[in-house]
Amino acid sequence: MLKRYLPILTWLPHYQKRLLGADLLAGLIVTIMVIPQSLAYALLAGLPAVVGLYASILPQLLYSLLGTSRTLAVGPVAIIALMTGAALSSVAQPGSTLYLEAALILSLLSGFILVVMGVLKMGFFSNFLSHPVISGFLTASGILIAVSQLGSLLGISSSGFTLIERFRTLIPNLPTLNAYTMVIGVGTLLFLVGMRLYGKRALTGLGMPGAVTDLIIKAGPVFAVIVTTLVTWHWQLADSGVAVVGSLPSGLPAFSFPWGNASLWQALLIPALLISLVGFVESVSMGQMLAAKRRQRISPNQELIGLGAANLAAGFTSGMPVTGGLSRTVINYDAGAQTPAAGAFAALGIALVTMSFTGWLYYLPIATLAATITVSILTLVDIPMLYQTWRYSRSDFAAMAVTILLTLIEGIEAGLIGGVTLSIALFLYRTSRPHSAVVGRVPDTEHFRNTARHDVETVSNVALLRIDESLYFANARYLEDTVYNLVASHPELEHVVLICSAVNLIDASALESLDAINARLKDSNVKLHLSEVKGPVMDRLKKSDFLDSLTGRVFLSTYAAWREFS
Amino acid sequence: MLKRYLPILTWLPHYQKRLLGADLLAGLIVTIMVIPQSLAYALLAGLPAVVGLYASILPQLLYSLLGTSRTLAVGPVAIIALMTGAALSSVAQPGSTLYLEAALILSLLSGFILVVMGVLKMGFFSNFLSHPVISGFLTASGILIAVSQLGSLLGISSSGFTLIERFRTLIPNLPTLNAYTMVIGVGTLLFLVGMRLYGKRALTGLGMPGAVTDLIIKAGPVFAVIVTTLVTWHWQLADSGVAVVGSLPSGLPAFSFPWGNASLWQALLIPALLISLVGFVESVSMGQMLAAKRRQRISPNQELIGLGAANLAAGFTSGMPVTGGLSRTVINYDAGAQTPAAGAFAALGIALVTMSFTGWLYYLPIATLAATITVSILTLVDIPMLYQTWRYSRSDFAAMAVTILLTLIEGIEAGLIGGVTLSIALFLYRTSRPHSAVVGRVPDTEHFRNTARHDVETVSNVALLRIDESLYFANARYLEDTVYNLVASHPELEHVVLICSAVNLIDASALESLDAINARLKDSNVKLHLSEVKGPVMDRLKKSDFLDSLTGRVFLSTYAAWREFS
Repeated sequence: MLKRYLPILTWLPHYQKRLLGADLLAGLIVTIMVIPQSLAYALLAGLPAVVGLYASILPQLLYSLLGTSRTLAVGPVAIIALMTGAALSSVAQPGSTLYLEAALILSLLSGFILVVMGVLKMGFFSNFLSHPVISGFLTASGILIAVSQLGSLLGISSSGFTLIERFRTLIPNLPTLNAYTMVIGVGTLLFLVGMRLYGKRALTGLGMPGAVTDLIIKAGPVFAVIVTTLVTWHWQLADSGVAVVGSLPSGLPAFSFPWGNASLWQALLIPALLISLVGFVESVSMGQMLAAKRRQRISPNQELIGLGAANLAAGFTSGMPVTGGLSRTVINYDAGAQTPAAGAFAALGIALVTMSFTGWLYYLPIATLAATITVSILTLVDIPMLYQTWRYSRSDFAAMAVTILLTLIEGIEAGLIGGVTLSIALFLYRTSRPHSAVVGRVPDTEHFRNTARHDVETVSNVALLRIDESLYFANARYLEDTVYNLVASHPELEHVVLICSAVNLIDASALESLDAINARLKDSNVKLHLSEVKGPVMDRLKKSDFLDSLTGRVFLSTYAAWREFS
Repeated sequence: MLKRYLPILTWLPHYQKRLLGADLLAGLIVTIMVIPQSLAYALLAGLPAVVGLYASILPQLLYSLLGTSRTLAVGPVAIIALMTGAALSSVAQPGSTLYLEAALILSLLSGFILVVMGVLKMGFFSNFLSHPVISGFLTASGILIAVSQLGSLLGISSSGFTLIERFRTLIPNLPTLNAYTMVIGVGTLLFLVGMRLYGKRALTGLGMPGAVTDLIIKAGPVFAVIVTTLVTWHWQLADSGVAVVGSLPSGLPAFSFPWGNASLWQALLIPALLISLVGFVESVSMGQMLAAKRRQRISPNQELIGLGAANLAAGFTSGMPVTGGLSRTVINYDAGAQTPAAGAFAALGIALVTMSFTGWLYYLPIATLAATITVSILTLVDIPMLYQTWRYSRSDFAAMAVTILLTLIEGIEAGLIGGVTLSIALFLYRTSRPHSAVVGRVPDTEHFRNTARHDVETVSNVALLRIDESLYFANARYLEDTVYNLVASHPELEHVVLICSAVNLIDASALESLDAINARLKDSNVKLHLSEVKGPVMDRLKKSDFLDSLTGRVFLSTYAAWREFS
């Protein structure tokens, strides 16, 4: 019982020296690797860079205590940072005290929502973010983030959270382009892309073993950070207009107790809800994928509590909304992390850097950070998926396309809400006009298939009608029409058998329609029968008067009905 | 083709003398019967009584031209009048010119919405008003209307469109009760209730034939109108505080071209949408029921156009929103109407009354009208239905109860929107946690049933899993969990057969999950098979790569899979 709510108890008691070595190494690697991206994501959200470090300390420690994934690394991530920036800039001016306070309130709200969902076991809520909506949202967000970094790459100021806003501020400022910044930004970008595309082949060609090659490629951003920092420091490029991280406060984050006012909390509620859902989906799908690789399991509802605690911690320690991140988790996993202790060690490492080594980051150019974000975010953009989805299902494609377009044009919230609403509406529309088929017997079997698709046996005075959908309010009247049309076009009919193998529910509206069908067929001297009614559906029908007034019978199988009438 | 859009062409060319007699008689009866209720419903909506007559002329004529039901009578009805009053009083003061103008705009908007829905063939939209929601809404509206008439019955002024508002204005005014009004109101009420409950038995006991008895009972309200009008006139009770209809303008309604302003149109949009939907549902279910009795058919999409034209006509001729009414249609049908000409004759009759005989209505007491409304509305209140729904399905009951409570407490709009939203949410929740069953073979048949419910044969290394739901985004992850748990708890498994007889759709999210299941089972050396995949689902799977990567086979029937493995 206690283990269920404190997953740390499942692994800490069995902790061994062998695991300690692996976890310590992974913790060290993660510390070094995630510092640049933590700074970058804080900047992406319009917050001071150091907030990204703060949000990587206590939140990760709490997740190590409460989370069920062995390898998930928690901290600021790109999509959540983008959503945070969009939410905050709708309530406060970037750079203002209010903006910082709003970031903390957003973390607290998000943490609170996640914990409540976890306690109420509402993890299933995230299922309503369908795959095409998530995929479309990630693609559009990737494009938005890439465009948002254009300014930093070229040394031009820009702002906004839709494509149009971005370009409207970017283009007039083009003349202020800074050549040094552009060389650093575009140079780093080309270097990182080159490493990804050709690095492996080139290094293996030089005779290096695979594992070392992988490590070097992953360390590409760290290498770029070191080189561009040294270059900027040596030639004092900050004096020539190259934006650098500058002086960061040193020491652990102060405890924060954001109060704000009621209207601020209210304005941030919907954004917090969306951030929670998206963050949870990103984190839990990541966690599930990696757990599956090692034949472990994660508990989605406990994950909600772990991530919720992490966000509450971020809100109380001058942080920003966090979740389990794609890139930081992959680094952790590949570095050989065995238990959540690796995450805890990385948190302690970042705490150490925050206390003593922030000075080393002074000359780190913002353009370098922008280049690392851009490269890592472009993996989210999945254009082939658009084509695959189009080929497979037009309605899934519609949901995806609407999500992408709304996200780019109207912003993140509109994109997500629009996409989810459309997926649900399309599903309801589809189930409101169910597929149905008149079936016949496959010769010499007890199996029945569509008369229009297969060569099957039929009996002239019997119609076997298979309804391929649960019967509920949205399609109850459609069912009536289907049966009436069938009877009207076959005057020789004496028996209609409704095959209910695909009927998983008959709600009160559909029951009403079945009653009406039964009565109307009775007037035409046609008997209504049912076959293959499922256990739970039958249990429910027995609670109504329908079976008493039914003119025909209920057959266990369609074959039984066939034998009766043929 | 022309017949489809002008249904009058289907009956007018074959019109015979025999039909003319029947239609003329029905028209006369309807004229007399519906005048009191038309006045009453206009008052219910907070409009001058004469508006109810105006709305019974041109709208009915247009419906006779464009509608597909032979017997539907169109005009003001109780529920729509209540909804109209609630909508108007949210934008204007009752009695003001703005209030009258808003009523016309509401009619035009509602007419426009209906016509557009008809042209776009969106009649299916009304299916989302599930039976429990409609039934709950009618019950709650019946209660609201009955309470709204209390004041008129007792001669006390009251206002508002929720229970609380009503009682808050009613109770403080109790001391202003008018004894004459109360005697007329309560007396009429008792007389009408008595006629309904005991009239048939008493009159038949006096030796009258059944048909005459029915007519006398139906004419009860007309009798009450005549008697109370004469009483009020003879003793000049208006001078003693009995509210009467008073002087009505005589002559046909003036043409009206309501302009209003943009914000008024905008404020009335949602109410107009709800009025259109509810009016359409009431009208079309009425029309379908009566058409079925005479083996005729109505076309829901053409009905939208007919009702839309009627509402547009109401908006342009000083009327109010209309629809096919329950009581006026039953009167028309029972009076023997054969074609829409009967409705047209009634419209002409009411036009004649409006031109020449409005003076006769001067002394008609409002309390009499209130009593007729109350009695006819109480048939809407269906308390036993609450119990039946509770017994049949808790989620249908929840939708019904929420609709009733919200309608009574928060008002009509909140009730309808809340009920529909809850029905959809409950349906989605249910489909997100589908029922599934491990099945086995019913001995000596080709039929398979749940191992937990039936005594069936199984094979130890094969699991036959039947999923009782379409696979889509909301349950894709639940499917993964179900399969993984099954495999985890049966280590001896080598084959999993997913029986897809109830799977009517596999969307892109579910396809992704099936891919994941296939890959993960492959890692555990378990093969995944499908059986009984339906034609449309199979067509779609063939457009993806899933079938190529599937480790097992696709069987036409579960029995074929059984033979293969046992």
